[in-house]
Amino acid sequence: MEIIKTVDLMQQASDTIRMSGESIALVPTMGFLHEGHLMLMRAAKDHCDQLVVSLFVNPTQFGPNEDFEAYPRDTQGDLKKAEDVGADVMFMPSAKEMYPPGAQTSVVVKDLPQHLCGLSRPGHFDGVTTVVAKLFHIVKPHAAVFGQKDYQQLAVISRMVMDLDMDIQIIGVPTVREADGLAMSSRNSYLKPEERISALSLKKSLDLAQRLFREGEKKAQVVKDFVKSYILEHPYTEIDYITLCDPVTLEDVNTLSDGTLMAMAVRVGKTRLIDNGRLVK
Amino acid sequence: MEIIKTVDLMQQASDTIRMSGESIALVPTMGFLHEGHLMLMRAAKDHCDQLVVSLFVNPTQFGPNEDFEAYPRDTQGDLKKAEDVGADVMFMPSAKEMYPPGAQTSVVVKDLPQHLCGLSRPGHFDGVTTVVAKLFHIVKPHAAVFGQKDYQQLAVISRMVMDLDMDIQIIGVPTVREADGLAMSSRNSYLKPEERISALSLKKSLDLAQRLFREGEKKAQVVKDFVKSYILEHPYTEIDYITLCDPVTLEDVNTLSDGTLMAMAVRVGKTRLIDNGRLVK
Repeated sequence: MEIIKTVDLMQQASDTIRMSGESIALVPTMGFLHEGHLMLMRAAKDHCDQLVVSLFVNPTQFGPNEDFEAYPRDTQGDLKKAEDVGADVMFMPSAKEMYPPGAQTSVVVKDLPQHLCGLSRPGHFDGVTTVVAKLFHIVKPHAAVFGQKDYQQLAVISRMVMDLDMDIQIIGVPTVREADGLAMSSRNSYLKPEERISALSLKKSLDLAQRLFREGEKKAQVVKDFVKSYILEHPYTEIDYITLCDPVTLEDVNTLSDGTLMAMAVRVGKTRLIDNGRLVK
Repeated sequence: MEIIKTVDLMQQASDTIRMSGESIALVPTMGFLHEGHLMLMRAAKDHCDQLVVSLFVNPTQFGPNEDFEAYPRDTQGDLKKAEDVGADVMFMPSAKEMYPPGAQTSVVVKDLPQHLCGLSRPGHFDGVTTVVAKLFHIVKPHAAVFGQKDYQQLAVISRMVMDLDMDIQIIGVPTVREADGLAMSSRNSYLKPEERISALSLKKSLDLAQRLFREGEKKAQVVKDFVKSYILEHPYTEIDYITLCDPVTLEDVNTLSDGTLMAMAVRVGKTRLIDNGRLVK
């Protein structure tokens, strides 16, 4: 696996791959890789000849009171995991390489960020779309792979690619979970043992909503109230949002239907966790 | 010359050119081509193997009270001129092809548009950067050529390319003028004969400023006042702005120095004209 740290060298490497007739898949990550990331990489390898993984903890997508400094890092472990799964290139630029002084351009998706996590994380998605647009211009991939766990991020990036005519296939991969159902996340490393037990309430509440829907419940408010009470029964939990919404526009729905998205962000202790699922008949 | 009207076909054509090892230069235009555009095309041909010209009157860069509907159009004439100068592809999409329903993404440069034309044309440069980013993703050029007559546009696009790591060389071509000095512009076609005489005051005032600077004048305000009076001596003129500014940041300067940019927008009758030049020792 080749390690590349500058924009110029990455662009040259990608030009060489493209000119050889091979295709490139990109998996953008913030590192501290877990099985979820590795699944994205395996999906990427299924789609393209060459796998580029990027490792960059992007400062511009963290709010002033968020966990940028504390975000878990393990570069050596990440390199080994990416190599083991068969990545061809690891692109790991410095913050200075990505944001030299004077930078003043951003890519802004207007409506989709005005829902779900965008409400409690103002500016977050501008940071995401801008850094992903940059990574796309640097790595020049034919396809890029993102997890459905970050459902809104996947929706926003898909919208950006469509609106700006980027010739890149966006692939969404289903959420990978621990044996007990907890959605894999680098932030799970923050959880104390007793908090981890409460954290299981997120996935369980998704299953609960699914059961209510299958049993005939059509009112979003009823399901939301039920799920909210269920989560709050668990110690250390505090709800940021629970939303039942249209899976394309992310706008709230009053009436549930096949495919409605249920998404949530819940604090467990100091750790903010997200999860989501689609209601299926 | 091949005529292409859809995003998909243009991307395929560009992929084919790139895979053959040839380079692509793009000249984005809003049509009604004049000698200024043709100079951009010749410069493009000097830099790359294949010349793609785009023809798209971009609605999103016109304000609600601007001349989008009235903007001069001559598609048959444009096709002939581009072909005669040796363009390989004319990309001419419809507005519906460029902005399908639901589009909500824009590329925003923050500071540079807060000067010169950006002040009297709010949103104009967001429209420009967004459509140019789209054209770059569609045509996939190695180089793109813009006129220095639209100095701020060239600065904003150069900034976008740098900030978003687009692997595209931006080439600026000096302003092409009529024999009497008037900077070439599609909007010159709006001028009545008596207005056209007054319009010459723009270029003459640039020469005047240059002479004052060479004679030792260092105060921006003195030059600005002088030039302003000079232009207003001509009938039908109304000044939008006259600025003496830093050529990189576009911020006003008080003291003139080698390379200071003088830029102006002046209405002559109902026609808004722009011109600029750099002061040289």
